[in-house]
Amino acid sequence: MRISELSRRSGVATATIKYYLREGLLPPGRATAATQAEYGESHVRRLRLIRALIGVRGLSVSAAKDVLDAVSEYATDTHELLGLVFGVWPASGAAKDEDAYADDSEVGALLAQMGWKVSEHNPARDVITQTLQTLRSLGMDYDWHSLVPYAQLAEKTATLDLDQLEGPDDPLEKAERAVLLTFLLEPALLALRRLAQEAESTVRYRS
Amino acid sequence: MRISELSRRSGVATATIKYYLREGLLPPGRATAATQAEYGESHVRRLRLIRALIGVRGLSVSAAKDVLDAVSEYATDTHELLGLVFGVWPASGAAKDEDAYADDSEVGALLAQMGWKVSEHNPARDVITQTLQTLRSLGMDYDWHSLVPYAQLAEKTATLDLDQLEGPDDPLEKAERAVLLTFLLEPALLALRRLAQEAESTVRYRS
Repeated sequence: MRISELSRRSGVATATIKYYLREGLLPPGRATAATQAEYGESHVRRLRLIRALIGVRGLSVSAAKDVLDAVSEYATDTHELLGLVFGVWPASGAAKDEDAYADDSEVGALLAQMGWKVSEHNPARDVITQTLQTLRSLGMDYDWHSLVPYAQLAEKTATLDLDQLEGPDDPLEKAERAVLLTFLLEPALLALRRLAQEAESTVRYRS
Repeated sequence: MRISELSRRSGVATATIKYYLREGLLPPGRATAATQAEYGESHVRRLRLIRALIGVRGLSVSAAKDVLDAVSEYATDTHELLGLVFGVWPASGAAKDEDAYADDSEVGALLAQMGWKVSEHNPARDVITQTLQTLRSLGMDYDWHSLVPYAQLAEKTATLDLDQLEGPDDPLEKAERAVLLTFLLEPALLALRRLAQEAESTVRYRS
């Protein structure tokens, strides 16, 4: 297909596609004339993944390029692929600075209790540590034990998430679905909790 | 207690307490001299709730005052109290502009399926509608049916949330716990999902 058709199919503007070509995020098409090239389905899928990484996950163009390069390298390894698009381990292979690790002994205890194997690069670790510290600084009696029932429900949520990635065999498509479903569903999951809170409050206090 | 002790107990700076007194968020203490007043436990609890509404929920000072006035009015009605601090219905009693309602027939179908009774002012409705529209605009085959299993888990999460509000009888304390647990736990719940995704990915693709 021509670049105009590629633009229509992927929902990405022609000027943006040319920019991605120059920056090396998108491999060149097959040249058919001095100023024309032919693009294929793999370009459509790759553009969709780029859009997901930049537009939805909020990566910079160069960070997206690192992830795309790594996705090509680990295309047959689903676990590695998902870790890359979720940012669980760095695409560049650069190790996190040792000093950057907060004391996450509470997270360690929670993970051990749940039997979860999780990379030490997973940025979600720090979020848990900070939340517990903030709640305690505001006078709440809260530690990792309080999160165990929530973690059990998160485990069921993650099972639903990964079930939806079982379909596509194409690694680019799988990576795109993983980004869209994980990042775009976040506000909806919090909104479902708010709706459920109101519904539960009605049942408890209005019956 | 003196204002300095009130500051120490509540974690709010003296200058900020004086500002809240001038703005009417905090009722005056009992005057003991021309420039001195005596404050009680109700001031400590009210300051903690103010801090939660402004610092955690991100309300403006005047919006926090509206909520505090309404909390005093509905102190004995837990359902009304929780609706106010969650923003489910407007503290001022002002109705939402009719034109502001998006087409939320999908949310209606989801609520009916779940058997949830939810106010039409609940801002979480729009979040669900927008998420579904965004996912479809990116080519995903997604509608409200896809959210039902997530809604069932949200229902269990909300039950955990409300169980933790059963303790305190004091309405100010109950409102403060509701704000802290709902808003501060949000990033932690999303982080637990990420950790669980990685753990589940390890089980599925690395065994």
